[in-house]
Amino acid sequence: MACEFKVTRRVEFSDTDLAGIMHYSNFFRFMETAEHAFYRSLGFSVAPGSASPEIGWPRVHAKCDFKKPLRFEDEVEIHLLVTHKRSKVISYEFRFRKLNAPTPEEVARGYLTIVCVGYRPDGAMHATPIPKDISDKIQVAPADLLR
Amino acid sequence: MACEFKVTRRVEFSDTDLAGIMHYSNFFRFMETAEHAFYRSLGFSVAPGSASPEIGWPRVHAKCDFKKPLRFEDEVEIHLLVTHKRSKVISYEFRFRKLNAPTPEEVARGYLTIVCVGYRPDGAMHATPIPKDISDKIQVAPADLLR
Amino acid sequence: MACEFKVTRRVEFSDTDLAGIMHYSNFFRFMETAEHAFYRSLGFSVAPGSASPEIGWPRVHAKCDFKKPLRFEDEVEIHLLVTHKRSKVISYEFRFRKLNAPTPEEVARGYLTIVCVGYRPDGAMHATPIPKDISDKIQVAPADLLR
Amino acid sequence: MACEFKVTRRVEFSDTDLAGIMHYSNFFRFMETAEHAFYRSLGFSVAPGSASPEIGWPRVHAKCDFKKPLRFEDEVEIHLLVTHKRSKVISYEFRFRKLNAPTPEEVARGYLTIVCVGYRPDGAMHATPIPKDISDKIQVAPADLLR
Repeated sequence: MACEFKVTRRVEFSDTDLAGIMHYSNFFRFMETAEHAFYRSLGFSVAPGSASPEIGWPRVHAKCDFKKPLRFEDEVEIHLLVTHKRSKVISYEFRFRKLNAPTPEEVARGYLTIVCVGYRPDGAMHATPIPKDISDKIQVAPADLLR
Repeated sequence: MACEFKVTRRVEFSDTDLAGIMHYSNFFRFMETAEHAFYRSLGFSVAPGSASPEIGWPRVHAKCDFKKPLRFEDEVEIHLLVTHKRSKVISYEFRFRKLNAPTPEEVARGYLTIVCVGYRPDGAMHATPIPKDISDKIQVAPADLLR
Repeated sequence: MACEFKVTRRVEFSDTDLAGIMHYSNFFRFMETAEHAFYRSLGFSVAPGSASPEIGWPRVHAKCDFKKPLRFEDEVEIHLLVTHKRSKVISYEFRFRKLNAPTPEEVARGYLTIVCVGYRPDGAMHATPIPKDISDKIQVAPADLLR
Repeated sequence: MACEFKVTRRVEFSDTDLAGIMHYSNFFRFMETAEHAFYRSLGFSVAPGSASPEIGWPRVHAKCDFKKPLRFEDEVEIHLLVTHKRSKVISYEFRFRKLNAPTPEEVARGYLTIVCVGYRPDGAMHATPIPKDISDKIQVAPADLLR
């Protein structure tokens, strides 16, 4: 069982905007990158194979607090922590640390709440329990990690 | 003085992901589109001309609650409302309404808090008062609009 | 029958990069925007409804020559012209004109070649003839337009 | 001196579109990722530090031929080869190989031509010779590599 995961990523040229910093929408892309790498580390994928997946993982809530900017070629560690788990819903916290600073420092903190859904024949989604084999591998991080 | 603004936009193919819906990070791009169109309607731009701007408008907080998905070619109205204004900070709410639904309905609601900054010679940012000519044109929406 | 189409679009903040200009990959997104608007003008969509489409339109060739940069809030006209049409393949040329220049001028010219495909049960694609009702509406632009 | 470089990258969820494959514009982002990693391997950066760079590297030509699609979580090797070098211009070829195929296979081949520019006070660009310390480190790949 796992309650946290870390990935490292470098800010690319196409991640920046004319203000010279990473565009804020890309922090949300980076959170998802960490989330999917977490799932891979547990042995599953949100889109297994080329056929249409039977379940989906849409976001119902996303949030980010930005403290310092990230710039081109900055190396950033994204530290995922599981904050809540219910039968159909998981919540994560993401701590962005700039590694190439004199002292690595947190530059942003993000949050995602994801619901597990099945698909109706017309493509409409309905909340459904997280499959047991996945749920059994994920646990909420202990309180001292979440401070 | 203005306290709200509306823009309409169509979901593009490159806005979607393999789940067949608009990728959640793009809601944050769309919020900014509405914000900048609001500024243009007031006669100013966050990046006037080709030279380096003297002030910037980084986001310090961004949030979105997702209720229903948007799909390719959906037409969405983004309704910006000014929720707070202080000397260096503005907050907005954004209501996403899908217009091509049988009954137009709110599919997401977003929030941005933006700080006005100046730049030091090394490019570092520091909070600075919003220029008076801009601030004078923006007012907080009345309470009944914000319910 | 149609052989050309024009759309206008404004460069957004998230389209720019730290060089202060539109990131070159976005010219390719803008070409597709014009292509899909062209299809809508003919009464069809590459992804009708929420169900999985039966045919797809992947790109097999994409090219762009960049003459001048586009900047934040520039208004650009994208002029699509049909350059070739065969049973399974269509090619387009795209002329990007910056409208907010003292004299509107061509800033880039792009090219796309698209093949119509069907899907096998495992999701693999195979080239298939363009449906007649679509093909009948599209014709190659006359030579004098393509100079 | 170097004439080639390889990077590996995984296709992310936000790189895909509703057709279930990587959106074609992202191949152009991936080319640039390989280009900038190549420069870093030579000890320089296209945007050194936080101040405005004195020279820029805009693309004047970009092209890609797509043979097979890439899907979510595919691992792709991007093999950069230097094809031309003149005083103000460099051209690259990029071979995309899907590594997680039964037999790794080329799925796309891209091309970029980049011009070195200086900036006028108004931000306008003009072609300028590639700095000698950079140019000296880059050489055209031998003919047998470019077949």
